Amino acid sequence: MARALRLAERGRYTAHPNPVVGCVLVNDGAVVGEGWHRVTGEAHAEVNALQAAGIKSRGATAYVTLEPCSHHGKTPPCAEALIAAGIERVIVAMQDPHQAVAGGGLRLLTEAGITVQTGLMQSDAAALNPGFLKRVTAQRPFVRLKLATSLDGATAMANGESQWITGLEARADVHRLRARSGAIMTGIGTVLSDDPSLTVRAKDIETNGLQPLRVVLDSKLRMPLAAGMLTLPGTTLVCCAGDLDKSRLEAANAEVMSFSADEGGVSVDEVLQELATRGVNEVLVEAGARLAGHLLDNDQVDELVIYQAPHIMGSQTKRLVDTPSWTSLADRKSLNITDVRRIGSDTRITATPSQKN
Amino acid sequence: MARALRLAERGRYTAHPNPVVGCVLVNDGAVVGEGWHRVTGEAHAEVNALQAAGIKSRGATAYVTLEPCSHHGKTPPCAEALIAAGIERVIVAMQDPHQAVAGGGLRLLTEAGITVQTGLMQSDAAALNPGFLKRVTAQRPFVRLKLATSLDGATAMANGESQWITGLEARADVHRLRARSGAIMTGIGTVLSDDPSLTVRAKDIETNGLQPLRVVLDSKLRMPLAAGMLTLPGTTLVCCAGDLDKSRLEAANAEVMSFSADEGGVSVDEVLQELATRGVNEVLVEAGARLAGHLLDNDQVDELVIYQAPHIMGSQTKRLVDTPSWTSLADRKSLNITDVRRIGSDTRITATPSQKN
Repeated sequence: MARALRLAERGRYTAHPNPVVGCVLVNDGAVVGEGWHRVTGEAHAEVNALQAAGIKSRGATAYVTLEPCSHHGKTPPCAEALIAAGIERVIVAMQDPHQAVAGGGLRLLTEAGITVQTGLMQSDAAALNPGFLKRVTAQRPFVRLKLATSLDGATAMANGESQWITGLEARADVHRLRARSGAIMTGIGTVLSDDPSLTVRAKDIETNGLQPLRVVLDSKLRMPLAAGMLTLPGTTLVCCAGDLDKSRLEAANAEVMSFSADEGGVSVDEVLQELATRGVNEVLVEAGARLAGHLLDNDQVDELVIYQAPHIMGSQTKRLVDTPSWTSLADRKSLNITDVRRIGSDTRITATPSQKN
Repeated sequence: MARALRLAERGRYTAHPNPVVGCVLVNDGAVVGEGWHRVTGEAHAEVNALQAAGIKSRGATAYVTLEPCSHHGKTPPCAEALIAAGIERVIVAMQDPHQAVAGGGLRLLTEAGITVQTGLMQSDAAALNPGFLKRVTAQRPFVRLKLATSLDGATAMANGESQWITGLEARADVHRLRARSGAIMTGIGTVLSDDPSLTVRAKDIETNGLQPLRVVLDSKLRMPLAAGMLTLPGTTLVCCAGDLDKSRLEAANAEVMSFSADEGGVSVDEVLQELATRGVNEVLVEAGARLAGHLLDNDQVDELVIYQAPHIMGSQTKRLVDTPSWTSLADRKSLNITDVRRIGSDTRITATPSQKN
């Protein structure tokens, strides 16, 4: 199963909106076939493994990181393929909560006389697909907030002077976060000040041509027609509050959608709901202190990835997050740190907000 | 030698102002004696090892983390003891830069026909005694700046609301930093707002009754007679600028010294010089944002130890360091991170300021 989990990772940048899945077939103690799900619409992990194993599938045990599907989607159901190939035993790390599956695959297998076990390395399997699982269970994407800061929590000088805080390796790492995301969200303030591209541009990352949807929260439609991202591959979705004139930006290659207003901005919850509807599993937020603070304040962040540069920038600087309403210690957000590692000369801290008591 | 380095650590809280030293005697491939320097005025590492080995010292090889001394200090010279015991070979990690030794020990040994080698694990040996080495070579103590902060560089709420940022384990760790220090330095602002004790109070740390000298930078002698530290074991040194009336504080059990004024405060450089004269190897600075910023600004910090709590405290908070003169990105301090580890739920980052180009 550990091998199957690693195989699943190979679909990281190409499988979404589908989950990443890995499958290993073992017969007589030997691995006879391996597969993973590479691209939506193409063969699933199980089918790839069965093809690799050929005749040796007969009587084999299948280790699959996610319940085999039971429905006819873009490809025929994997459960039927496993049955047809004469698999004797299927070990599944976790059930698929997708309403079209939800135990149906396991049932098909069991009814065909196949021995089925579930739960092996379940939490590792769940960690493979945080976005897919959240989308199908909560109809919201998994929101990952990326922050870059000095050791003392500064992002730029107070007078506006700024440059890359973190090093080359950290910036390359951000491209991996982008590539696994269905969408990248930012605020209009960041577009106006930095004109970011928000595309995946890394030679060592193969996304099969996918670019994450670029989402700009822009309540008053201040998006400039000259914004760099409007000319780049992929789609830019500009989210405004209320019914504004969209034609100007639409003519400039943007998609524009209206949402409710919320605290003077666009309703982030509605935007996230829309993204889930579009099949976005993971959203990467690359934004300024204001949107970052707003999302934290509203408990809309599932994971923080903080790149910390080995500098002390001092007091005449801009803060990492802007939280005007946090005036008491009790307002602070506690985090569970799940990973700390060195990326070049920077430190990358991955954390999840602690549950409220 | 690795074993000798570990033995040396056992004197960490008791040997200062002497360096920590470890010694292992090996005869016929077996360890026949071990020793370390425990308390100033008592036997040195080599003598302790010789005593443990007894007759088996004859013909043995001695591994010593620091050059054996050649001068009559509080104890007779170790080089003579090694010669008298019939040691055949001495492996020394590093020369002792102290002017009373400085190669003299190695020379004595060589002249007695003993084979001498130096340099084995030299950088590890130097790392054992940063304070002693800096004091004898630069006539200044090693300055370690301790900081405690949230992940976003905050230390308290802007309105003054504050409590321990870091957890119990991190605070226990600070007591280990205190215990290895000859002095703890703070500013009068911290005394007035927090009334800290700055003593070592940890059941698992044996300091042989030593308490670090408490040093308060207090240019205008605002130190309250009721300050808690004045009633605690050990000495409090209050450092003022210019010739002020010392009698009031002296009557309250403080030692008061005058230094030059510098940027509206006490000349830190003069204070550090005085501390070196008093045999202080390592100074731990536990201060507020102002003194921390001042020391960083003046390149007076040799090491930073930053305890980072897993919280985001937001923008309505006090900053980690106060550096009013750092108005450009070029003013920031780059650090070399030498160690990162989890202490309870906090992260401890140890770093040294990068060399200026």
